[in-house]
Amino acid sequence: MAQDKKIDSALKVNEGIPQPPSVDNNAAQRFLNIKRKKLSTDEYVDGILQGNRTILSKAITLVESSLPEHQLIAQQIIEKCLPYAGKSIRLGITGVPGAGKSTFIEALGKNITGNNHKLAVLAIDPSSERSKGSILGDKTRMEDLSNDSKAFIRPSPSAGSLGGVARKTRESVVLCEAAGFDTIFIETVGVGQSETAVHSMVDFFLLIQIAGAGDELQGIKRGIMEMADGIVINKADGSNLDKAKLAAAEFRNALHLFPLSESGWSPKVLTCSSLYKQGISEVWNMILEYNSFTLNNNYFENNRLTQSKYWMYETVNNQLMDNFYGNKEIQKLLPQYEKEILNNKISSFIAAKKLFEKFSK
Amino acid sequence: MAQDKKIDSALKVNEGIPQPPSVDNNAAQRFLNIKRKKLSTDEYVDGILQGNRTILSKAITLVESSLPEHQLIAQQIIEKCLPYAGKSIRLGITGVPGAGKSTFIEALGKNITGNNHKLAVLAIDPSSERSKGSILGDKTRMEDLSNDSKAFIRPSPSAGSLGGVARKTRESVVLCEAAGFDTIFIETVGVGQSETAVHSMVDFFLLIQIAGAGDELQGIKRGIMEMADGIVINKADGSNLDKAKLAAAEFRNALHLFPLSESGWSPKVLTCSSLYKQGISEVWNMILEYNSFTLNNNYFENNRLTQSKYWMYETVNNQLMDNFYGNKEIQKLLPQYEKEILNNKISSFIAAKKLFEKFSK
Repeated sequence: MAQDKKIDSALKVNEGIPQPPSVDNNAAQRFLNIKRKKLSTDEYVDGILQGNRTILSKAITLVESSLPEHQLIAQQIIEKCLPYAGKSIRLGITGVPGAGKSTFIEALGKNITGNNHKLAVLAIDPSSERSKGSILGDKTRMEDLSNDSKAFIRPSPSAGSLGGVARKTRESVVLCEAAGFDTIFIETVGVGQSETAVHSMVDFFLLIQIAGAGDELQGIKRGIMEMADGIVINKADGSNLDKAKLAAAEFRNALHLFPLSESGWSPKVLTCSSLYKQGISEVWNMILEYNSFTLNNNYFENNRLTQSKYWMYETVNNQLMDNFYGNKEIQKLLPQYEKEILNNKISSFIAAKKLFEKFSK
Repeated sequence: MAQDKKIDSALKVNEGIPQPPSVDNNAAQRFLNIKRKKLSTDEYVDGILQGNRTILSKAITLVESSLPEHQLIAQQIIEKCLPYAGKSIRLGITGVPGAGKSTFIEALGKNITGNNHKLAVLAIDPSSERSKGSILGDKTRMEDLSNDSKAFIRPSPSAGSLGGVARKTRESVVLCEAAGFDTIFIETVGVGQSETAVHSMVDFFLLIQIAGAGDELQGIKRGIMEMADGIVINKADGSNLDKAKLAAAEFRNALHLFPLSESGWSPKVLTCSSLYKQGISEVWNMILEYNSFTLNNNYFENNRLTQSKYWMYETVNNQLMDNFYGNKEIQKLLPQYEKEILNNKISSFIAAKKLFEKFSK
């Protein structure tokens, strides 16, 4: 019940778009009606296309549900929303806890909605405990943005494998875009496995760093820096300003040694203070610059098509693996074979073969 | 027939270990007998354990074969060799064409065999055309090493998916180790998808670079630099020496910004001239230093166990995908769905679902 109330209040926070006048004139009652009523696929789609966030939220809940009947209707909704999706800038944002990601998202987000854009903030973070990653779990961290009628914040799906959660986030992007959100943020904590998944669903991948002796960087997983289209050194304020500028210069040198990305874009390094809202519009300008650069050389479009194909294969592969590793017999055998491998009693390949033979029976 | 001759001559080149005296005293005839005879699993295993390279070569050919009867005996051989495997240093070597990889491998290889070690050089390179990657395809590039009785050079399996080829190379490592090779090189061209696979089967991952204005680096795929335990700037000789030293300093600075690797080891950057055999023993000393460092902190052993588990899961996953994408119905549907995705007529997820439904029937 407490959970329900929390969801109600969360939905209300996001219920910012004015609704057409209703006969009963009782907005709260209407809201509850929508929330409780079983909507048809077309009602979902119409609601989403009208930018109704309650219905958008409900549809995303269906996407995230593992119940087959929910999945069925979710897929129908997605299919019908698809022609209206795609008209957005998709931005991946990552950085270790402590880099000030939420404050940054709030600062950049307010900048964007202030320019009359509509922003949806989603997250991929299957493995994080809330206390550790704190990824959108606590919306009060983004108080301004939560109360912004042009922003829609959706916490990370709470359970499931990385593949599953990533797929759900990717599907939610379609629904948000169909609902008229023209800017999508997808947040990860930068310490997990999810960055490749995010990288495969965004146009621009932004890494938030902070200045320091280098120790702060240790938390970032290897390989992430090479994915970045831009690095922002956050907390460039007060006594930290010089250190931040120095860090930016060092990153610039380092990126210079990296191979050019496929897009042909040279990653940029900026500094900003999310707290004092300094350097924020420069970050947004960088993203816009990237956008027109990649639109001009056709990378933007090509990359999106490549990503779409990637997600077809990725979804198939995940499904194949879910089937296999979800099998009860296999689940019983896996720890046993792992142990035999560790004791050099069986080769990885023969263990795999035996598992597969068991599964095929 | 020409192909056969080529294989014969390749085998002879590697036939360096003295054989026990034979009654017929006709080495060539004996060689052909071994080569043509159908050996039993035990004969294979005995031959490998005695360090007989003709038999080792034949066994690797079985590993690489896609015929089920070959695979069956190959798996039996691997299983029996497994207890004798693992006692080696496994080194992954990558770098773009032009970095002087073959000359480097020859120089480092001769250094190693000169110190009385036995060296096997394998390759993963499923996609390269010979002319482009030239990965071990032309053994004359490593003339000294090819004629070295302590070295065994095996070209890359010529066909198959990356997963398949990588698995075969991983299995060949087991056989080489059982045959007494205590140092294993695994080469890739550094422009493909295979570096992650190599990284998952070696103890030390070495990136060969050359000095230059940066353009030479563009060929290296992103993410590879962050995998490296060491970088060697090759061709540090003549008028190139200063540039090479400068490049090394730049790489050192860049690596400093990278997060620490799981091993706790700080990647080193060295220069060398493979042509003039300068700085080669320093490279080998770096690898030995890494080895004792990771043996001391238990990373070496833990990493190998993690890799073994990885290969069990990887093999299962590859098998699942081979089954799916090898299906004739699926092969017919894939290009059709890809086209519909590109035209925004179907979502990636629905395409995946439909493919899966077709497969499940």
